[in-house]
Amino acid sequence: MNISLLCIGNELLAGKTLNTNASWIGKRLNGHGCNIGEHLVVPDKKKSITSGLDYLISHDPDCIIITGGLGPTSDDITRPTIFEYVGTDSKFDSEYWEHLSKKFKQFDMDIPDSNRNQALVPEKGEIIDNPIGSARGLKFHLNDRQILFVLPGVPSEMKAMVEASIIPWVRVNVNGSFYIKNLRTTGIPESALIEEISGPISSDHGCDIGYYPSILGVDIRLSSKDQTKLDELSSNIRSILSDKIYCDGTDDIEDIIVHEAIKKKKTISIAESCTGGLLGHRITNVPGSSKIFKGCHVVYSNQAKIDLLGVNHRTIDAYGAVSIKVAQEMAIKVKNIFSTDYGLSITGIAGPEGGTKEKPVGLIYIGLSDKNKTEIRKYKFSSNRANNKSKTSQVALDWLRHKLIND
Amino acid sequence: MNISLLCIGNELLAGKTLNTNASWIGKRLNGHGCNIGEHLVVPDKKKSITSGLDYLISHDPDCIIITGGLGPTSDDITRPTIFEYVGTDSKFDSEYWEHLSKKFKQFDMDIPDSNRNQALVPEKGEIIDNPIGSARGLKFHLNDRQILFVLPGVPSEMKAMVEASIIPWVRVNVNGSFYIKNLRTTGIPESALIEEISGPISSDHGCDIGYYPSILGVDIRLSSKDQTKLDELSSNIRSILSDKIYCDGTDDIEDIIVHEAIKKKKTISIAESCTGGLLGHRITNVPGSSKIFKGCHVVYSNQAKIDLLGVNHRTIDAYGAVSIKVAQEMAIKVKNIFSTDYGLSITGIAGPEGGTKEKPVGLIYIGLSDKNKTEIRKYKFSSNRANNKSKTSQVALDWLRHKLIND
Repeated sequence: MNISLLCIGNELLAGKTLNTNASWIGKRLNGHGCNIGEHLVVPDKKKSITSGLDYLISHDPDCIIITGGLGPTSDDITRPTIFEYVGTDSKFDSEYWEHLSKKFKQFDMDIPDSNRNQALVPEKGEIIDNPIGSARGLKFHLNDRQILFVLPGVPSEMKAMVEASIIPWVRVNVNGSFYIKNLRTTGIPESALIEEISGPISSDHGCDIGYYPSILGVDIRLSSKDQTKLDELSSNIRSILSDKIYCDGTDDIEDIIVHEAIKKKKTISIAESCTGGLLGHRITNVPGSSKIFKGCHVVYSNQAKIDLLGVNHRTIDAYGAVSIKVAQEMAIKVKNIFSTDYGLSITGIAGPEGGTKEKPVGLIYIGLSDKNKTEIRKYKFSSNRANNKSKTSQVALDWLRHKLIND
Repeated sequence: MNISLLCIGNELLAGKTLNTNASWIGKRLNGHGCNIGEHLVVPDKKKSITSGLDYLISHDPDCIIITGGLGPTSDDITRPTIFEYVGTDSKFDSEYWEHLSKKFKQFDMDIPDSNRNQALVPEKGEIIDNPIGSARGLKFHLNDRQILFVLPGVPSEMKAMVEASIIPWVRVNVNGSFYIKNLRTTGIPESALIEEISGPISSDHGCDIGYYPSILGVDIRLSSKDQTKLDELSSNIRSILSDKIYCDGTDDIEDIIVHEAIKKKKTISIAESCTGGLLGHRITNVPGSSKIFKGCHVVYSNQAKIDLLGVNHRTIDAYGAVSIKVAQEMAIKVKNIFSTDYGLSITGIAGPEGGTKEKPVGLIYIGLSDKNKTEIRKYKFSSNRANNKSKTSQVALDWLRHKLIND
């Protein structure tokens, strides 16, 4: 199925907003056997929207998806522009207006009159529910074959609506079956990964393979119309990469950890220094994490490490706060304080300041303690503070994942 | 000056590569008084490139910038396609070929024959130097007025060439200066914000205004060729929105907090429950935060609130963990434990589970304690866990910002 994308918004053209919507939609629909043929970004201007639509339609896609411009303000002109373009009158949905007004009341606010346009619905055409926001979407049949979807530009709302309304429609309308497998890896760079699996990927496997690297790891996406071939390639890759693959779906490492810990009735506590709360944040992003996550000490200063965790000040004096010994004490102490099965600790230098010749920016020690032993791992990342925090959280969580799975 | 952008590459359409080039070019040229009128992404296909160019040219921009498809591999077809489009023959640049061959030799490699196309230059048209890579760019006069630039898609090379060749050309060709002001707001929805500033924005102010909402707030971007008019509008908006504007540049709230706290020699500690470490994470994203941030307790369970913070178990029994009283005790206790000037506390129900009729998902209490008093604020957000965590962190940090500025 050929799909074209029309993103509406001055903020995209001015570079104020990175167009993550377009790449997300591309990736998501690609995974369902769709091909994004063209993708056009135009300003919030009636003439630009209509001429953009004309252009995209002239390339004969099966479906066009529009994002953006469904908000309540005067520069959100997508709704009336599309109503005119497809030739439909609109009516006011009083029931939805009531619903919106109530929502605002919950926040002790009167609903502004400008929100009224969000209650306008087309005479010809369908409404697409927005499960998390006030801007509902639209669906039109341009002719016998071509479909037009209109979605808001707010990423979380757009994504929820693609999942709930567009993917099911694509599933029904893509010819023939299409199978996908997503193997999420971490701890191995893309080039090394491709070298490791060069055997299976250079064989006559009959699948499409895509690599999607990010700072947290590389996702391998396999797709094929032949399920047997897909399973065979996937299992060949899996036998090589083994537990460098943490998931064959869409879960993050923190999801795996929380689910595994709940299953095995294990509890977790964390003492983090240079990551500043990022590990706790990631674990608590997972619904249900309160069952297994008992708490986290962000001990950002030496004194906090001593006073709150009970790290021995002599250890800090002798070895420094960023050291094997301190990581070790932190992991043991936090495990004991929260009475958990595992204690995870992090101490390091996130940068960009604070490094020395012996202990450069990017030096990180991670400790993991259970009832039997306490182990320490050492890493040396880059000079970029944000990247160091992200990478550290990923290797620490991946270690904990291994531990949980093998325990 | 009106500029259109044509990005060529299958990887952009499939969502494998996030189109950071487009937003970077948009931002960079916007800052020099250029307006990006449209931006089109097409696959590495001759027909798509030429019809895309036709479309963009029909909107009459002063300049078109193409990125991508100048590499040495067989799917890099931009160069021959453009030569044909503008109607020029090409010749082989032996001198550049020599230069490229030498470069490869430096890395002990023989230059592959496929690189020969990178030494092709047009008979009519100019070459743009690539200071850091092998793919040089192209510049053509489409007619008396319209200019076409062609650049490689590798971000570092594209950026170097925009800086070295396109920005200087823009400076000469944009008439007059161009001024920008960015006002970052939080705590007020876009529609309500626009209603509040309806006076100044509907006056004859002679500026362009853009609104850029996100889950954390709304940025207002003002631009004009007349600095006096820009300053006047900005100051009129500022007098209405007052301290709902947290920054008139690009800083986040956590940046403001850290800089203000360093300036005033104030220290901060945090006790967070449902945000799980996100506040600590945000504060520690700011380089230098260790000077003022003493630590954070992520007390995710009732027991941790009692054992680690010293919250009275009777308070929890009587009022529940998500209550004014517990938020109050948490703020006071964490301030005392870390001996800081401010103690910030958060307790709430992030969801999607855990809500009751009296205490629904999205209910949050925030406490802020200093040496004089402890105040509590109550919020009711949505049912979305990730959004609740983000919004809670933003209102809490914004409150702390107010406190710091007024202290």
